Amino acid sequence: MDPASKYFHCTDRERAIFEAGIKLGAIFHQYIGTPVNKDNVNTVKKAMEDSTKIQPFVENIDVNINIDNNSSFNYLSLNCKMLDVKLTIKYNDQEVKARMRYIEELNYPLMYLEE
Amino acid sequence: MDPASKYFHCTDRERAIFEAGIKLGAIFHQYIGTPVNKDNVNTVKKAMEDSTKIQPFVENIDVNINIDNNSSFNYLSLNCKMLDVKLTIKYNDQEVKARMRYIEELNYPLMYLEE
Amino acid sequence: MDPASKYFHCTDRERAIFEAGIKLGAIFHQYIGTPVNKDNVNTVKKAMEDSTKIQPFVENIDVNINIDNNSSFNYLSLNCKMLDVKLTIKYNDQEVKARMRYIEELNYPLMYLEE
Amino acid sequence: MDPASKYFHCTDRERAIFEAGIKLGAIFHQYIGTPVNKDNVNTVKKAMEDSTKIQPFVENIDVNINIDNNSSFNYLSLNCKMLDVKLTIKYNDQEVKARMRYIEELNYPLMYLEE
Repeated sequence: MDPASKYFHCTDRERAIFEAGIKLGAIFHQYIGTPVNKDNVNTVKKAMEDSTKIQPFVENIDVNINIDNNSSFNYLSLNCKMLDVKLTIKYNDQEVKARMRYIEELNYPLMYLEE
Repeated sequence: MDPASKYFHCTDRERAIFEAGIKLGAIFHQYIGTPVNKDNVNTVKKAMEDSTKIQPFVENIDVNINIDNNSSFNYLSLNCKMLDVKLTIKYNDQEVKARMRYIEELNYPLMYLEE
Repeated sequence: MDPASKYFHCTDRERAIFEAGIKLGAIFHQYIGTPVNKDNVNTVKKAMEDSTKIQPFVENIDVNINIDNNSSFNYLSLNCKMLDVKLTIKYNDQEVKARMRYIEELNYPLMYLEE
Repeated sequence: MDPASKYFHCTDRERAIFEAGIKLGAIFHQYIGTPVNKDNVNTVKKAMEDSTKIQPFVENIDVNINIDNNSSFNYLSLNCKMLDVKLTIKYNDQEVKARMRYIEELNYPLMYLEE
């Protein structure tokens, strides 16, 4: 049940796509800057996944953080090149797969619809 | 021209809707927590608008921040009840209007498609 | 060993106090806005603690998040009233205890030095 | 007048140093990730400065953002290498100058006390 459905005028697939965009935009801008190294990377990954799962219509989420530390203080701030996120949104019977990952040829952390 | 078009398999309208979701999720999670009062609210509003306008496919954005300060230190952290954002995304000839605002009956800062 | 010591001109106690301020300011502005409810609150708490522990001179950190959800979507964005953070910084033999918690009489999430 | 003074047990100089740390930690973790290019960089700089100025005991702040865009979408997310922040805190008659800037030899955005 969706308590906000009356606010929307779109198809179920369009709604799923909108929600996918929201979640990816949110993940990026909430967590970029978080200190990470090998000691906490799994905890941060799990926090990102669990904080997304409790949001509406999230069917599945898999976050990968690629770290390669070399600062003098042995950790780095999470940046866009480190993130690879796979997200599945389901709204009614419409399922959408979205992804965020850094794409070298674009020099950009692209958020896109996988299928 | 969209350098990332080959990564997408969707209609132009679906793409516009996805981009609208990304931008609203980003705005919320980037700026929530920013200190605001009457002295800086217009600057923060303008930063939120201008930082959104430089992102792909943003046709228009209007941010309203409703403040009503009463802390002992004369400012508050920007929270979800203060924000009302109207966003227009255009992808090729498809235009989508989206909005984020706090909705009392949901006790929730809803992001939705206006038409 | 502190690879940055040459950049500082202060006592060890002052350095510890400065680092305590940095960590509390960082925690607040990194995590405010994160979606939380009873299902992910422990994961978020652990991420906040572990992301602080890997930063320089952090001796101990204890984060408490007080949630009391009642939105239509069953989670809330982490806000300043929910947080109670106890932090111990040690620089050489100087130890400082700092805290951030919402103080009703100030209507403010105060960051202060406990002793 | 400081409505929170009773919560502190430290000298005025220590308090100024603590507040300097808070502000630098806050600036970094609030704004890292913000989209920036030449079109909005001055607005973002001003928002960072004005949002800091309204906080307690901030005497002066000067933010510099060094951008050098080259992504396919013509903007970048604000990162730690771009920032150079000079901050003056005054608590009673104690004035402290602090700075955050990326230091190549440390590969780290150092926050330190300038004098």
